[in-house]
Amino acid sequence: MSDQIKFLLDEDSIPKAWYNLAADFPTPMPAVLHPGTKQPAGPADFEPLFPMELILQEVATERYIEIPDPVRDVFKLWRPSPLMRARRLEQALDTPAKIYYKYEGVSPAGSHKPNTAIPQAWYNKQAGIKKLTTETGAGQWGASLAFAGSLFDMDITVFQVRVSYDQKPYRRALMETYGARCVASPSNETECGRAILAKNPNSPGSLGMAISEAVEIAVKNPDVKYALGSVLNHVMLHQTIIGEEAIKQMEMAGDDPDVVIACAGGGSNFAGLAFPFIGLHLRGGRKRRIVAVEPAACPTLTRGKYAYDFGDTAQMTPLMKMHTLGASFMPPGFHAGGLRYHGMGPMVSHAYELGLIEAKSYHQVKCFEAGVQFARTEGIVPAPESTHAVRCAIDEALRCKAEGKSETILFNLSGHGHFDMQSYINYFEGKLVDQDYDEAELAASLAALPEVAA
Amino acid sequence: MSDQIKFLLDEDSIPKAWYNLAADFPTPMPAVLHPGTKQPAGPADFEPLFPMELILQEVATERYIEIPDPVRDVFKLWRPSPLMRARRLEQALDTPAKIYYKYEGVSPAGSHKPNTAIPQAWYNKQAGIKKLTTETGAGQWGASLAFAGSLFDMDITVFQVRVSYDQKPYRRALMETYGARCVASPSNETECGRAILAKNPNSPGSLGMAISEAVEIAVKNPDVKYALGSVLNHVMLHQTIIGEEAIKQMEMAGDDPDVVIACAGGGSNFAGLAFPFIGLHLRGGRKRRIVAVEPAACPTLTRGKYAYDFGDTAQMTPLMKMHTLGASFMPPGFHAGGLRYHGMGPMVSHAYELGLIEAKSYHQVKCFEAGVQFARTEGIVPAPESTHAVRCAIDEALRCKAEGKSETILFNLSGHGHFDMQSYINYFEGKLVDQDYDEAELAASLAALPEVAA
Repeated sequence: MSDQIKFLLDEDSIPKAWYNLAADFPTPMPAVLHPGTKQPAGPADFEPLFPMELILQEVATERYIEIPDPVRDVFKLWRPSPLMRARRLEQALDTPAKIYYKYEGVSPAGSHKPNTAIPQAWYNKQAGIKKLTTETGAGQWGASLAFAGSLFDMDITVFQVRVSYDQKPYRRALMETYGARCVASPSNETECGRAILAKNPNSPGSLGMAISEAVEIAVKNPDVKYALGSVLNHVMLHQTIIGEEAIKQMEMAGDDPDVVIACAGGGSNFAGLAFPFIGLHLRGGRKRRIVAVEPAACPTLTRGKYAYDFGDTAQMTPLMKMHTLGASFMPPGFHAGGLRYHGMGPMVSHAYELGLIEAKSYHQVKCFEAGVQFARTEGIVPAPESTHAVRCAIDEALRCKAEGKSETILFNLSGHGHFDMQSYINYFEGKLVDQDYDEAELAASLAALPEVAA
Repeated sequence: MSDQIKFLLDEDSIPKAWYNLAADFPTPMPAVLHPGTKQPAGPADFEPLFPMELILQEVATERYIEIPDPVRDVFKLWRPSPLMRARRLEQALDTPAKIYYKYEGVSPAGSHKPNTAIPQAWYNKQAGIKKLTTETGAGQWGASLAFAGSLFDMDITVFQVRVSYDQKPYRRALMETYGARCVASPSNETECGRAILAKNPNSPGSLGMAISEAVEIAVKNPDVKYALGSVLNHVMLHQTIIGEEAIKQMEMAGDDPDVVIACAGGGSNFAGLAFPFIGLHLRGGRKRRIVAVEPAACPTLTRGKYAYDFGDTAQMTPLMKMHTLGASFMPPGFHAGGLRYHGMGPMVSHAYELGLIEAKSYHQVKCFEAGVQFARTEGIVPAPESTHAVRCAIDEALRCKAEGKSETILFNLSGHGHFDMQSYINYFEGKLVDQDYDEAELAASLAALPEVAA
């Protein structure tokens, strides 16, 4: 046990550029379409929502995009994040495999989300914007944008799904500690919110409704912009700082991953770790196995259709080509709130179509089982989302044991579970069960996908 | 903002020895007395509770005590902890002072407590002990010992004060995730617990009762030992790893603290940062200001008496000479559960008597105000206990501003507040108020101190 387990970089080693996988894709990404005309959307179509620098990143094809110094300065608060060798987990599994994890839970908000919240807030601030709106479910993203807002002295309004607002007050408290204003959604602050409340004053809300409220505020107020925490290309871009660091740290460890694993909801923490490794391959390096792990109850990649779809239930966003269960799909209740999205980010979907990545799905009980084993060996209690990656990494290590192979496994531990202990309580009390989506509902949701000319 | 803010050591730089302030005290510590005979207690008196290695550390006078390699191996999971320069806080305060903080919240349990939980569990394991009992209030210590138990495959039973057990289920969930068994105290598992329940079946419990239950189990079962998370000399010793690292890191930063600050309940996180700096002074170095910060509602150093007293309300522990409010003192309700102890660790008390340290007390509202300012500038939400150190550091920085002095301030950020967000909610809702102890009650409690021959 006396060998090195922690691979740290100093703050001068924070990458100076993000890596853009679009530069190396063998075929270009499909265009994004205007929701009305269904014709390719141009930068102007996004201007009510985002500042021009982020819109340009959304369509950028250069391989590297410089990280502004003020953004790198903020990153110094917790980056580079550690790469850890999970020797105690290896020992418990009695596997010949080597298991490494990149730990993103060291950020002040406790997950990878500030990696994009900080640059998004900064580019908006540079464009003269002082107010941002967004939505949040459980609160990981809302807390991250709130944190970014506190550093750049911006007003942040977070529309939090009513049921989360009521049932999960601690993540809301975190957002308020960072100075953000939290509004239970649906609210009386928007037309769409008022319309929903008129029909059902006790609506529990949904992520789709909250997106619509946040977008409406931005569209109607020229001094307010909108921020999104996953799915979009510029979000994937910002997260690649994870993989860029991990490549350097694996070199420090004198090792090279055979399998790269991350959980995938909208796809941003997966893209963050995986895209730089995919890039190495596309530029002539060896092909590694790259595995996206999703919940069996919301199996976007493994069961969804690759088609044009809306990003929200209210059909206000542009149409994106992605793996989707249909914008009207409602997954059954499960604990990994960050993996409950109907679609998969277009860049991740494109990589999947090109055969550059694999996908795997797990039910939640086995994921929590893995999360507990990880906590008892490595100390860190993983977020419910991250337990999916832990589960897959353990299964790969057990496969190596069965096959007598000493492969190197790297996974992204995207966040800690300090704000999700209720799900661990449910697990220990046997109240956490595996739930499947309704096949008929999925069929209906897929049948309702918008029609788009080929 | 582009100057270095993070001072990291690699895992080979984890100190190889703990520093023992007892070696450098100009006058020796007063003896510990047997609770029955009131004569100096010998090692044998402690054998029912602790393994011999820890008992020897309790009375050790050598300056350095080697940290066993298996303990250092576990520390690699999170140590050395970072030393940070709080440049954003400095900027917000517009102070010429330089503010540094040592961040102990990076441990898996979220505070400095694993620094002693790991060696305590390991020394017990080496002595053939497989079962440990302890008590916990809010749960920081219980979670840390549970974590230690999971790594060394030991059975941990935590007697958690009933009211915390019921009202703070998330820290309990953390203990259970690490595999510990939590018992609401008072319980039916001990004689003293049953006696309390017979009188009052709805007793909310207290830390004193929980200590009595944990101690009773250890005393009655030769295969079970007891572990304590603060107050005792060997706990102070184990925590000095904080200050030993900080001395190296301040050198890396090319700086040297004029003021060293930490909050103090039982005294262990304070001792951890402060003792190595006091040692530098006692061995001929310059005298720095060393400030212990305590809650005004439980002002052990600033208002307590230096006298022999029991460690628990049930008067089962040996008598220790310490600053105390009296073992029967009940502080009013406030949120820093880790600072609610009636006494101050004997080594910290001795240092105070010798004029080696200062003490300062704060009411809680101003501490939370400082905690929020810290979160909004540095990102980390401090634990309620740690906000006392933040408050004091900010006040020292503002003094420097008023005096036009560029002093260097170092404080210990002993833990994060992820499990204490309810107290932040109360703060934002204006429900958190400053409470004072009852002067008559303090007088009565001090009058009830045990009589000991001079």
